[in-house]
Amino acid sequence: MAASKLVEYANAIPEVRAVYDDIMATRKTDWINNFWKALANDPVTLRRTWESIKQVMAPGALDPLTKEMVYVAVSVTNQCAYCIASHTVAARNRGMTDTMFHELMAVVGMANETNRLAAGYQVEIDGQFK
Amino acid sequence: MAASKLVEYANAIPEVRAVYDDIMATRKTDWINNFWKALANDPVTLRRTWESIKQVMAPGALDPLTKEMVYVAVSVTNQCAYCIASHTVAARNRGMTDTMFHELMAVVGMANETNRLAAGYQVEIDGQFK
Amino acid sequence: MAASKLVEYANAIPEVRAVYDDIMATRKTDWINNFWKALANDPVTLRRTWESIKQVMAPGALDPLTKEMVYVAVSVTNQCAYCIASHTVAARNRGMTDTMFHELMAVVGMANETNRLAAGYQVEIDGQFK
Amino acid sequence: MAASKLVEYANAIPEVRAVYDDIMATRKTDWINNFWKALANDPVTLRRTWESIKQVMAPGALDPLTKEMVYVAVSVTNQCAYCIASHTVAARNRGMTDTMFHELMAVVGMANETNRLAAGYQVEIDGQFK
Amino acid sequence: MAASKLVEYANAIPEVRAVYDDIMATRKTDWINNFWKALANDPVTLRRTWESIKQVMAPGALDPLTKEMVYVAVSVTNQCAYCIASHTVAARNRGMTDTMFHELMAVVGMANETNRLAAGYQVEIDGQFK
Amino acid sequence: MAASKLVEYANAIPEVRAVYDDIMATRKTDWINNFWKALANDPVTLRRTWESIKQVMAPGALDPLTKEMVYVAVSVTNQCAYCIASHTVAARNRGMTDTMFHELMAVVGMANETNRLAAGYQVEIDGQFK
Repeated sequence: MAASKLVEYANAIPEVRAVYDDIMATRKTDWINNFWKALANDPVTLRRTWESIKQVMAPGALDPLTKEMVYVAVSVTNQCAYCIASHTVAARNRGMTDTMFHELMAVVGMANETNRLAAGYQVEIDGQFK
Repeated sequence: MAASKLVEYANAIPEVRAVYDDIMATRKTDWINNFWKALANDPVTLRRTWESIKQVMAPGALDPLTKEMVYVAVSVTNQCAYCIASHTVAARNRGMTDTMFHELMAVVGMANETNRLAAGYQVEIDGQFK
Repeated sequence: MAASKLVEYANAIPEVRAVYDDIMATRKTDWINNFWKALANDPVTLRRTWESIKQVMAPGALDPLTKEMVYVAVSVTNQCAYCIASHTVAARNRGMTDTMFHELMAVVGMANETNRLAAGYQVEIDGQFK
Repeated sequence: MAASKLVEYANAIPEVRAVYDDIMATRKTDWINNFWKALANDPVTLRRTWESIKQVMAPGALDPLTKEMVYVAVSVTNQCAYCIASHTVAARNRGMTDTMFHELMAVVGMANETNRLAAGYQVEIDGQFK
Repeated sequence: MAASKLVEYANAIPEVRAVYDDIMATRKTDWINNFWKALANDPVTLRRTWESIKQVMAPGALDPLTKEMVYVAVSVTNQCAYCIASHTVAARNRGMTDTMFHELMAVVGMANETNRLAAGYQVEIDGQFK
Repeated sequence: MAASKLVEYANAIPEVRAVYDDIMATRKTDWINNFWKALANDPVTLRRTWESIKQVMAPGALDPLTKEMVYVAVSVTNQCAYCIASHTVAARNRGMTDTMFHELMAVVGMANETNRLAAGYQVEIDGQFK
């Protein structure tokens, strides 16, 4: 079988449970989504990835909602179905309205379009942008 | 020669000048960047793309700075050098500070990483995300 | 219907059967996976692709397991679900352990992350790398 | 040094010269572009790639110009600067006019845009398309 | 729930119905595929995207079949399952035969391969291509 | 100006110098490449990224050379010029021969090709791969 098994809390080793506990506490939720349960097969990567995500997604100069919408934008560009589904829900939970989602998609679509127009027309970078 | 010539204002046909004028008026600037000068070889696409960008990037439920940062996030994900350069400047002009840029890059980097972890571990979408 | 029909051995023309026979003999297996059954709709591409794969994946300066892991790395980067599933199994069949898979995913994830950091920060290539 | 050296005809081994000769004869040209000179560091891949390209790009149910335009479309989508430059010239040499190029770019741009809208809105495939 | 609801004709506001009517009239069909029903949650993007697609895909210097095949080539490169399914059907409806489809896939595959060979060998653009 | 300034050791704050020192000690080298000098504008990301890379690229079930070649494979797939240049040199420094590089590129090329053939032919995942 190719796909990794999901590590449930009940069967997890203490190092994994500690990460799960921190995820649930940080996110004020009582469940763990499949991404973490799959990563838990590798407790070192689980911890490193969670610590990185926790640091990166924390409020800072950018608010958490903006960060989640950027996450959705990248995931959509990369065609990652899991990430689109999970981060769209996360963004909604942080306050993304329908209208915000629609505008986000419109920007992501246009950026993907003009990225190719710039490449195809072989546009040189303006001196003002260097 | 492969690359398209750049259409300067002085040599542009009226349809192109009209778009250039609108770009400069909308952006409150007195110059046109190479992307538009290259697209101007195809006045129909020039107009359509400009009208779409103008609509999509206008203030709405998302503010123009957020939209520019999303544009940067997509362009970075796609490795479009021209678009990264131009939209990073545009985002700075709209108020993106160094710290905001750093946080943006951190999120874009993490999203690109976890997009692949989700794919590689073949994680199924949780029922809660459907 | 958009998807291509799968060409089963029983219904295959001799040119296709010859490739199927070679695939099974080379791989020491008694079945053909769907990728080849779909390609068999175009016997010329089937043969060319199989001959290329056979040459490229044969033991050389890189061993077959390393090659399969590289295949997984590319497939994960491209979000190709079919290729991730099939080449992860192929790599496991060639000896990839859980720990090797976990380390492979960690490298793929980091590479995808730093590829974007390098692009977003617009890092110039060092003279030492040219 | 990271980049591969270019193998010039004068210094090439017979296997490489044979491919170079076939490239020039097939393309009715008297020079070899850098892509092949770089690949020539690996004569096996040089031959395999050239034989594949020659077969794939030959006139068939699709004419050579259409094939070159598809090559440009893929290269633009992938942001491959070398391939965009070389295949745009190849397409022009086969008869791509300015207007055809502009329409090609418009389609490539729109496809890249709607690919993301379909992903972001998580659109399910219609029964009619299966 | 993450995925957007589909807007059926019966429940659509007049602005959406007007676009649906135009899609069906332009395409000489009596149904609307899910892509548009999802976009209809944002009537402004629905109209803008439809108007753009209608303009871009209309017969011009490139015929509609060629344009649909380019659309497929881009969608395959981007691994967009919805777009591959829908535009492959659209291309077939415009006359793409099995043989044409097979040749299209062969070109798309080769272009994706050589795009990476050019990048990996760090091939410099020839003066003749600039 | 869009691109980030490079932070030289002489002008670096202690937190940055500490990372630079660790990079040079770990890699047994006396210089810092531009990637880190650019990231150093954000000392938090600099440290997090370096700590992650150091952990991920350390010898484990996969040897450091294999890991560097996987890094190259991903970077080539993503068309990241900086990463291709830097990690190709890193792989060579760890023992990648010309022949190994050529085989690596051949695998990366084929994987990118067949990833698209699998997508374009809409191949369903075999039960044996699930």
